[in-house]
Amino acid sequence: MVAYDGTNYCGWQVQPNGNTIQAELTAALEQLLRHRVSLIGASRTDSGVHARGNVCVFDTTVRMPAEKMSYALNTYLPPDIRIQDSCEVPLTFHPRFCRTVKTYEYRILNRRFADPCQRLYSYFCYRPLNVEAMREAAGYLTGTHDFTSFCTHKPDVTDHVRTIMDFSILEEDGLITLRITGNGFLYNMVRIIAGTLIRVGIGDFEPSYVKEALEARDREMAGETARPEGLTLIRIEYPDGYGSPDPGSREAWGET
Amino acid sequence: MVAYDGTNYCGWQVQPNGNTIQAELTAALEQLLRHRVSLIGASRTDSGVHARGNVCVFDTTVRMPAEKMSYALNTYLPPDIRIQDSCEVPLTFHPRFCRTVKTYEYRILNRRFADPCQRLYSYFCYRPLNVEAMREAAGYLTGTHDFTSFCTHKPDVTDHVRTIMDFSILEEDGLITLRITGNGFLYNMVRIIAGTLIRVGIGDFEPSYVKEALEARDREMAGETARPEGLTLIRIEYPDGYGSPDPGSREAWGET
Repeated sequence: MVAYDGTNYCGWQVQPNGNTIQAELTAALEQLLRHRVSLIGASRTDSGVHARGNVCVFDTTVRMPAEKMSYALNTYLPPDIRIQDSCEVPLTFHPRFCRTVKTYEYRILNRRFADPCQRLYSYFCYRPLNVEAMREAAGYLTGTHDFTSFCTHKPDVTDHVRTIMDFSILEEDGLITLRITGNGFLYNMVRIIAGTLIRVGIGDFEPSYVKEALEARDREMAGETARPEGLTLIRIEYPDGYGSPDPGSREAWGET
Repeated sequence: MVAYDGTNYCGWQVQPNGNTIQAELTAALEQLLRHRVSLIGASRTDSGVHARGNVCVFDTTVRMPAEKMSYALNTYLPPDIRIQDSCEVPLTFHPRFCRTVKTYEYRILNRRFADPCQRLYSYFCYRPLNVEAMREAAGYLTGTHDFTSFCTHKPDVTDHVRTIMDFSILEEDGLITLRITGNGFLYNMVRIIAGTLIRVGIGDFEPSYVKEALEARDREMAGETARPEGLTLIRIEYPDGYGSPDPGSREAWGET
C-alpha cells in the first residue's frame, strides 16, 4: 500500500514526458532488488491527484520478508511517496482485475479566502456552498446507475454501470469533504461528480437536476471536471481477498 | 491578518539572502499602493514556520477602503501567502508593543510511516508517544514561569518570565497537536517545549523532569528545538484592542 502527494507528478502511470509515481516506485524497487521490476497499480490516478492508500504489486525472487519491504523501500523513495504497508500475495492476484471497493475523498475549502497550507490538498471555492442541497444531490447518485453522464469517454470502456455504496458529505471549519465509496469508478467520475455538486452548492443546479443529468446519459448535462488537487484515493479494499481475478472485470476496465 | 505556508521562505523578516514573507508582502503592497511601504509584523516567524493568522501593519495615504485591501492585495501575492482580513487601526497601534495573546500549534504525526500529504505541516515521529505523559509534562509548564530553560538566548532579552494561559494536547488519527496560548513567547520557546515533550512522550524524560528543567533556568536541561515545519502561528489577539502600546513591552521584547 502506497501513499503519495501527487502535486509534483504527472499521475501514476509511466509516461514519456514527466515524472510519475509508477516510475519513481519502479526505480526504487530496482535499486533495492537489483533486478528489473514490472509494477502493476490498482488505480492509475491522474496528474495532481493524491493517494493515502493505493495498491500495487510486483514479482520478485529476492528472499526478503515481505513485511520488511516497506521499510527498505522507503529509504529509496522521495518524501512525497511513502509505502504504508507491504505483504506477500498469491501469484494470481491482479490489483485491478480482482473485485475492489474503493473510497475517494474530494475536499472543497469553502471560505472567504484561501488557506495557503491547504491549497495543495483541496479545491478552493469562495462562493458559499449549500451543503444540504449537495447532500440531496448526492442521494440521487447513490446506488447502481449508468454513469455515462459522469465520466470522460474512453472508447474501450462500454459498460458504464457502477455502484456507489456510500456517499457522505462532511463539513468542518469550512472544509467540505465528499466521501465516496464504490465498486469501481469510471474515468474522471469522482471529479465530475464533485464539479456537478459544486454547481448544486452554488445554486446553479437544483439538487433534482442531478437525477435528470444521470438519466440523460449525456456528459454535457453534468458539471465540470473538478480540479485534481481536491481528490485523494483513500483506500482500496479487496472483499474477496487477494484470490483469483473476477473473469468479468478485465472487460469492464477495458483491458485484455 | 495574513496566512502563509512557510515551507519555501526564510521566515518573516527581510534578509539579504533568501525570500521572506515580509519581502513578498511589501512588494505586493508597493505594487498595489504605488508608494514605498514599511511593514511591521506582529510575529517574526522563523524559516519554515507557518501562520494561519499573523498580523502586520503599514501606513498609507491611498484612499482605498481598508476592508477591500485584502481582496486587492491577494491578486498580487503568490498562492502560499493569503491575506485573511484587513482593517484600519489607530496610528498609535504597534503589532508587537501592544499587549497580545498568541496561540501556536505544534503538530506531530505519530504513526508507523510518514504521510506524504502531511509532511510539510507536521513533524513525523515513528516512535509511539505516550500522550498522557506529555499532558502531565505540559501541566508543569502552564502558568507564569521563568522560561530561561526553554528559549534560545538573545542578549537583548533579559526578562524570561512569560505566562502560558492554556496548553492542551489533542490526538486524532495519529496526529498529536500541542496547542499553546500565552501572553508572549521567547525565541524558539514553542519549538523547545515541543522538542522536550517529544522526549517525554518517547520515555527519555519523566514528566516531572520538565518541572526540574524549568526550575534550573538552564537551556541545557530542556530537549532539542523541534523542526520548524510542525509549527503554525494560529492567531494573535489584542485584548486591549488596537489602542496605545504597553510602555513596558518594548523592553520585554528587547526593542527600543
